[in-house]
Order: sequence, then structure tokens, then C-alpha cells
Amino acid sequence: MGDFFPATGLRATCTLDFQIEVATPLILMLRPRSGPGQWVVRESYVLNPYVNVVEYADVFGNLCQRLVAPYGGFSIQTCCEAMLLENRGVTAEANFVEIQNLPEAVLAFLLPSRYCESDRVGVLTREITAFARPGYEQAASICRWVQDNISYRPGSSNVPISALEVNARQEGVCRDLAHLGIALCRSISLPARFVAGYLYGLQPMDLHAWYEVYVGDRWYTFDPTQFGGDGGRIAIAYGSDAADVSIFHQFGAGDILSNLDVRVELLTEGF
Amino acid sequence: MGDFFPATGLRATCTLDFQIEVATPLILMLRPRSGPGQWVVRESYVLNPYVNVVEYADVFGNLCQRLVAPYGGFSIQTCCEAMLLENRGVTAEANFVEIQNLPEAVLAFLLPSRYCESDRVGVLTREITAFARPGYEQAASICRWVQDNISYRPGSSNVPISALEVNARQEGVCRDLAHLGIALCRSISLPARFVAGYLYGLQPMDLHAWYEVYVGDRWYTFDPTQFGGDGGRIAIAYGSDAADVSIFHQFGAGDILSNLDVRVELLTEGF
Amino acid sequence: MGDFFPATGLRATCTLDFQIEVATPLILMLRPRSGPGQWVVRESYVLNPYVNVVEYADVFGNLCQRLVAPYGGFSIQTCCEAMLLENRGVTAEANFVEIQNLPEAVLAFLLPSRYCESDRVGVLTREITAFARPGYEQAASICRWVQDNISYRPGSSNVPISALEVNARQEGVCRDLAHLGIALCRSISLPARFVAGYLYGLQPMDLHAWYEVYVGDRWYTFDPTQFGGDGGRIAIAYGSDAADVSIFHQFGAGDILSNLDVRVELLTEGF
Amino acid sequence: MGDFFPATGLRATCTLDFQIEVATPLILMLRPRSGPGQWVVRESYVLNPYVNVVEYADVFGNLCQRLVAPYGGFSIQTCCEAMLLENRGVTAEANFVEIQNLPEAVLAFLLPSRYCESDRVGVLTREITAFARPGYEQAASICRWVQDNISYRPGSSNVPISALEVNARQEGVCRDLAHLGIALCRSISLPARFVAGYLYGLQPMDLHAWYEVYVGDRWYTFDPTQFGGDGGRIAIAYGSDAADVSIFHQFGAGDILSNLDVRVELLTEGF
Repeated sequence: MGDFFPATGLRATCTLDFQIEVATPLILMLRPRSGPGQWVVRESYVLNPYVNVVEYADVFGNLCQRLVAPYGGFSIQTCCEAMLLENRGVTAEANFVEIQNLPEAVLAFLLPSRYCESDRVGVLTREITAFARPGYEQAASICRWVQDNISYRPGSSNVPISALEVNARQEGVCRDLAHLGIALCRSISLPARFVAGYLYGLQPMDLHAWYEVYVGDRWYTFDPTQFGGDGGRIAIAYGSDAADVSIFHQFGAGDILSNLDVRVELLTEGF
Repeated sequence: MGDFFPATGLRATCTLDFQIEVATPLILMLRPRSGPGQWVVRESYVLNPYVNVVEYADVFGNLCQRLVAPYGGFSIQTCCEAMLLENRGVTAEANFVEIQNLPEAVLAFLLPSRYCESDRVGVLTREITAFARPGYEQAASICRWVQDNISYRPGSSNVPISALEVNARQEGVCRDLAHLGIALCRSISLPARFVAGYLYGLQPMDLHAWYEVYVGDRWYTFDPTQFGGDGGRIAIAYGSDAADVSIFHQFGAGDILSNLDVRVELLTEGF
Repeated sequence: MGDFFPATGLRATCTLDFQIEVATPLILMLRPRSGPGQWVVRESYVLNPYVNVVEYADVFGNLCQRLVAPYGGFSIQTCCEAMLLENRGVTAEANFVEIQNLPEAVLAFLLPSRYCESDRVGVLTREITAFARPGYEQAASICRWVQDNISYRPGSSNVPISALEVNARQEGVCRDLAHLGIALCRSISLPARFVAGYLYGLQPMDLHAWYEVYVGDRWYTFDPTQFGGDGGRIAIAYGSDAADVSIFHQFGAGDILSNLDVRVELLTEGF
Repeated sequence: MGDFFPATGLRATCTLDFQIEVATPLILMLRPRSGPGQWVVRESYVLNPYVNVVEYADVFGNLCQRLVAPYGGFSIQTCCEAMLLENRGVTAEANFVEIQNLPEAVLAFLLPSRYCESDRVGVLTREITAFARPGYEQAASICRWVQDNISYRPGSSNVPISALEVNARQEGVCRDLAHLGIALCRSISLPARFVAGYLYGLQPMDLHAWYEVYVGDRWYTFDPTQFGGDGGRIAIAYGSDAADVSIFHQFGAGDILSNLDVRVELLTEGF
């Protein structure tokens, strides 16, 4: 546990407006937690009107909010100010970790999941990583391959599509490219997990998704749709893929979300 | 907590023989636990030769055994004698549970998973369950529909296939039919989980798979490939689908399992 | 999950100032979580200067912050605005729950703990509760007995003393009276847990402690040092007793805390 | 994960006979789990007569069995055959671990607990360990001091007594000496946990208790009542002290246990 500097300060706000015909159960994940390299300094979570909410932690440790959105207009406004450790760099030890040496909590991220059919992409991955050193370099060549071969097209899919579907379409949103990267990693026994969060400078601004790969002794950030370092991100929730990590999950039919507004600002002043 | 009677006693043995060219990491789930209606009376887990094993509980509570199978011949022999509560019947209260009232531990079983694309089968499920009362009856009509529409063909798939694939092929092994049943249930917000275990009288004898649906205040057993009551089963492991619940998960290539032998006997004498 | 109204809004701030000769490891519990009847609307946690912090959840679900306080002046300032459900009342069903029917997560709160020697106070408890109906009434007569027999004297103990010691001294701080109440409850198999938090209107203002007893189907608040309803409280952390629930736990000798300031205000405006 | 050899094989049986006037809830911990250096090869758990049992894992990972012992004669017979790694030796790295570097799961074992008043024995511990190197050597000098200063007297206490009480009496059973050793360790920030289990060769044969201390990168066994190496033990359950780790916990009054029989044999044949 060294010092926090150099660190970036970010403020992210996320507002969801609903128009609701029939009272609808929702599960939300809009309360970021502090974690390695991320310290939540200020945070707010405002409902209008107020309804009863039950907050619980899921098996990944995400804080989930369960409520019944009431008839009529309903809005949720959250804000988070976080201090974020800047690029921690890649250490020489970011090697492949043998299965028998992986921490227990990491093992589940080797398994295929709803949108990451890692059990079907092994041949492709071995081609992509043929010349990479086991570990970080494999993960990096996978991320580069996704960047080079799949077009990042915001708005191109409304519902999540799976890694195989993304590969066939050759385009997708951030979530889709993350799914493909994750599937490729897991197929060669690199543990990979999905992250939903905020990214400073994203164009157009929206919620964002990327992934992390476990090599050496920690999780490393990979983002096939954005270039640049690993500062500038607030992680909101972690999971196997977008099936587990849904910022906003609605039970019941109907298009109830009338507006979603996300803003991310740099905090130049001290906290 | 009433009495255990009437209960069935079963003894299940499972032997795995391996021929291994390169030392291979394995994760096994072969230690059944006691649970509602299942009491493990005797149990054994023999490795030959002995190698170091780390046992841990995964997020579903399954006991997992992690080891590196050594070069040469290697075998695992497990045996479990359990006392099993017979058909507990369906209570009148086995109604649909509103999302906001489900126990937290059950919520994850509403999500789509690797082999259960519940996000893509909603239209079909609504047809199947059009005339069923919300809750147990919906689950029962789904199970009947799978029985009537998908042929149970042991040996017809070597690798897991997904609910959509099963539905297209119209045939599958026990695991495949369970995946389809689960996907259909989840698509109408019935929590459903995959079970791997032993079934007395299965023909041909093998490891078996079925699923459970949460209605009223507990999990109910459904098995689209077998008829008859819910005694006669030893549950080994639970999860979202066969991706989470792998009795034997091998890391690395090669066909190392040379023989799998499963036996299930009725214990007619007292324990 | 009914409505949040009538609810109280409170803002609590807690500032800790340190003067440190030798860098000192600390574990803090200063991040309240949302829970039944408590919704955290706004929250902040400011360190000055910033040092690296690791936040984790302990076995009770409390968020703990682990850091090394640096040489020199160091301060922590936290603020929490919460919406709090007012007195939920005692339902007729607040009966004693048989051991075999208690939720698993509640069982640990039947055990004796560092400052609650429930294994040594059974005779006294049976006297106190001789005429009470099993359940809420037993808990209420215990709380009244503590109020009537132990003087609440803020500042009378600097280090935690145990239930037996409190009973011998016949006086104590809020923490001490809570320990005695808890020990008495557990000795007749009423699950009881310690709560640290903020109380509106406390005189003199400080961090506060009380306890909860599980009867019927939920935890009920008891506070032997304060009269009045159960609104007006923000729970920060839960545990067996003050050994588990330490808002500020220092490793190493020396009197490093130079100032502790707590404020609790009523929020009369909307959130 | 190296090889299991040299390993010892032990078979332990534990029989409890009850005579019960009023149906009595019990919580038992009689199902040992596999863990580092301990592999459960065979295990049985027989109730006579059979009653419904709920098995769950507590926060320490111990398997607990909850049941209501019925009126009349009732018995529990358990047997466990385990393969046990022999003395793993003390590595040079068994140093004191700074608080900020301890694994999260270890932190709770720094806290005082019911029978281990580590908050009151710091002065004594600093005397005892004045000349010891931080880490394993401190723990070893504490264990030696307990051996030299407290007489091990089987049968000398029927109910658990605390570390301070043991120190005052200067004698105790295995559990009592373990409590004193644990309290002394924790008072200088050495994490220490209580273990209940079986020991081969114990005279007179009974259930046994000892403790483990976390130094370097793992838990080390200490036993102030027995001399010799760390093979020959089957751990049944872990916890803070005997309050958490009760092989047999009875709710309600009366002396219902009419007989307890423990046997531990060496398995000289292969498993």
C-alpha cells in the first residue's frame, strides 16, 4: 500500500428518467465501491419520488439496489467523486498464472458465460496469440486483435450480443467488444472479467464497458474501444459479462427508460 | 424441520480413470453436501496415486477439488451414501414470487447464462405457459413441453450445447434438456438452477443432470428426461448451468479420461 | 417493501484528527451502508493528506477501511446523509423464535463474545424475565432492567468493559449498557447484536452504541441509555460486541487521536 | 501444491450418547473438512434414530449440523479417515506480517474474543517475548511460556474459562491453555485462531483443542499441552475461541449427554 499519487479525480453523474405505466421491479447497480486504485470520496443516490429500496451485495461484491419503480414519472440521480490511481504500469512479473496457483476467487472467471463463449473460440485465440509470451503479452495481443478486426460503432446493438455474434458482425458497441476480448482470453485460461463504469472523455458520453485480465498477481485493465492509459475510469460493477453486470435491470415488458444522461468531469481542485 | 421419513437410502459410486501424458490441472466437484432433504451418511474420496488437493467452496457452496493430475495412470474413486427425503409434494402455495420478494440468494438464477439464453426465448415461453397459473404450474407446463418436444438421446452431444441449439436440434442429452427448461423458466422470471447428480434407475447409468425452479418458498425438482417422483436423487452440485457445474473440468488439451463408471444402488438395510 | 414515509432525514459528520509520531496501521469503520429502514442518500469520506486505503467487507458485511496513518498531522472527515424509516412498531408476531427456525445468519448472535459473557448470566436473566412472554417482551424487560439498575454515565470508562464488569460497577457508557443488555438476551437464546452509530439529539454529542434483538421475523432496536422511538439513528456497523465493531481501531501504542468531533443534524428540507 | 508424502493416515471416531427428557435443539460441528495438509478420505455421520438435520457453513467455513434431539435415547456416531501432511517445518520467512499486509480473512483473528482477553494481557506478553524475533519466534516463546507456567490438568474445568482466569488458576484443560496462548499472541498483533480436533496418542483420549498462529504466509500449529510434531492431528473446526467452536452446543438446560467416546487410530495400511 504505497501512496495515492499521482492520482486523478473524477466526478461522474448518472441520471435515469422513467415513465412507468405499471409498477415495475428494478435491480440497479449504481453505487460504485472503493477498490484497488479507486477511492470513493463522495457519492450520492437520489430517488424521486422516494420508494423503499433494499440494497445487497451480489456474489461479485457489487452493491445492488432492488426496488419497485412506481407508476408515473420516476427518476434516479447518482453522483460519484473518486480518486483514481493513474497507470500503474505492467510489471515484468505479469506472467501467466498456472491454474493450480490462481487465487480461488479468480477461478470462476475462467468459465464461459452467457455472452462469452470461450468454449468455442480456442482455435482462433491460439492463432492470435501464437507469438505472444504467456501472460500479459497474450492478453495484449488479444486486445489489439479485437481493436483491429472489430469496428467500434456506438449504438449498433440495443441488446447484448455474444462474442461469436460480434465476431460474425465485425462491429459492436463497447460491451460487445469487451465480450469478445473476454471470450478469447478465457479460452487460453487467462481469467477475464467484465467491468461496467465511467470513462472520462468518452465520445459520445455514455456508460462504458471494458474488461480486466488476471496475470501475475493482479487484474489488468483492457479496453478494445479506447486508446490511452488506465487512469480516467470509475468502475461501477464487475462480473462474468453483461448478464451479471447490468447497471439497470428491468423485470417486465415495456420501454420505461425515457432518458439516460451521463456526465464525467475532471476534478482539478483538491478534494 | 420435521422427520426424515419416509426416506430412501442410496449408495452412489463414481470412478474416473485417467491416462495422462502431461501433468494436467483439474477442478472436480465430486463431494456431495448435505442439504434440504439430503443427508450424507457416508462418503469417501480416494485418489490413486495421492497428490496434493486443495478443496474450496465456490460461490454456489459447492465443494471443489483442485489438483494437478500426474503423468501416467491416475484414478479417482468416490462413494456417497445418502438418506433422501421422498416426494415432498407440491403445496398450494407454490405460487410465483414477485421479484421484490425473492430471497437475495435466488436472484442470480433469474439471469441468462452460458447455455441458457433466457433473454431470447420469451415469446416461446409465453406461448407454452399461456394457460398456466403463475408459479408451479408454469414450471410444470414448461417441463412437459420440453419432454414432448425434445427427444432425450443419451450420447447425442459430447460438449454442452445451449438452449437455443437444443431447441433447433430437437434432441439432446439430459444436460441439454435441462438447459432448455431453465432458459424457458428464467424468461418469465421463474428462478431456475442446474443440478448435477446421481439418479437411481437411470438407463444407461451415468452422471445425470436436472434442474430446480424456485416457487412459493422453496426449490422444486424438475427433470424433463425422467418420469416419476423426486426421491431417488443425490445432488452433487448446483449452478447456473453446465458451465458452472462441471463434475470434472480439465485445463489443457487431450482426451485424458479413459473410463467413467457410475453406480447407484438402493440401500434396503438400515444405515 | 412498502413506502419510505414517514421518514426522517439526518446528516451526520464525524471528524477525527490525529498527531502521529510513528506511521500507524488503522482499521476504520466509517462508511455506513444502506439497510432495512436506512437509505444512504449522500456520503463522503475525505482523508488529509491522502494515503492509500484498502476497503473490504468483514464477515458482518461492514465496510472496513485499512490504511497506514502517516507521520505528522492526519485527519479523516466523513459525512453521511440518510433517510430513516420511523418507528416501525412492534407486531404481535414478535415472538421468541425456536433455535431450529432461526435464519442461519442469526445463529452466531446467540454465542457469548468478548464483552458479553452470556454464559454466566443465565440465573439473573431468568429472574428479570420471569413474568415476560417469550420474545419481544423478554427483550423489553431486559432493557428496562438495565435502564433501572445501571447508571448511564458518559465518560465513565475509557476502554470497553464487559457485561459482568458493568453489572458489578452499576454504571457505564452507552457501549457498556449495550453489552449488558446483549449478554442477558443471549443467555435465554434471544439473538442480540451490537450496533455503533449516530443518534440525533444525543447529549453530549458523540458516537453512540445500542443493540438489536431478533424476535419474530426481524431485528428490533433497543437502547438502554436513551428514551424514545427508533427513528433518529444511523447505523454505521454491526457485530457481536465492541470487539468486532470498532469505528477506529489502532495497531500500536500511543495516544494518536487528538480530536473527535461528531455532529448530527435533522434535514428538514427535501433531499 | 507439492506431493502429499510423507503423510500420516488417521481414523478418528466420535460417539455421543444422549438421554433426553425434553426435545432439545443442538448445533454440532462434527464433519471435518479437507484443508491445507488435511485430506478427508472417508467420513460417516450416523444418527440413531434419524431426525431431520440442516447442515450449513458458518462464517469460518465450518460445517454445522442443526437438529432437534428427540425425546428418549439418541446417539450420534461419526468417523473420519484423513491423510495428514507431516511436519512442514518452519521456514526462515515465518516473520511477523505487518497489519497492512495481512490477508483480509486473517484480520478478525487479531481481535479479543470471549475467552481470549487480548486487550488486557499486553504487558505480560511483552515481557514473555522481550528477546524473541518478531514472528514465529514470538509465537514459540509464548507457547513455551504457557507450557512452563500453566499446568495441563485434564478434567480440571467443566465450562470454558477465559485466558485471565487460566492465568490466575495456573492450571487448565487443553482448551484453557489454548485460550491463554491465543490471547497472548493477539495482544502483540499476531493473528491466532482456536482449533478443535483429534490428536493421535492423547492421554486420556478425548476431543482436543490447540491453536494456530499466522506468521510469514501461513497458519502454524501450536499446542501448549502436547509435545512433538504437527502431524497426527485432524482439525474439525476453527474459530476465535471455544465460544465459536463448540463440537456440541445444546440449547436448553439439563445434562443430556450421557456418554462421549473418542478413538483415534493410526492407519498403517494404504487408504
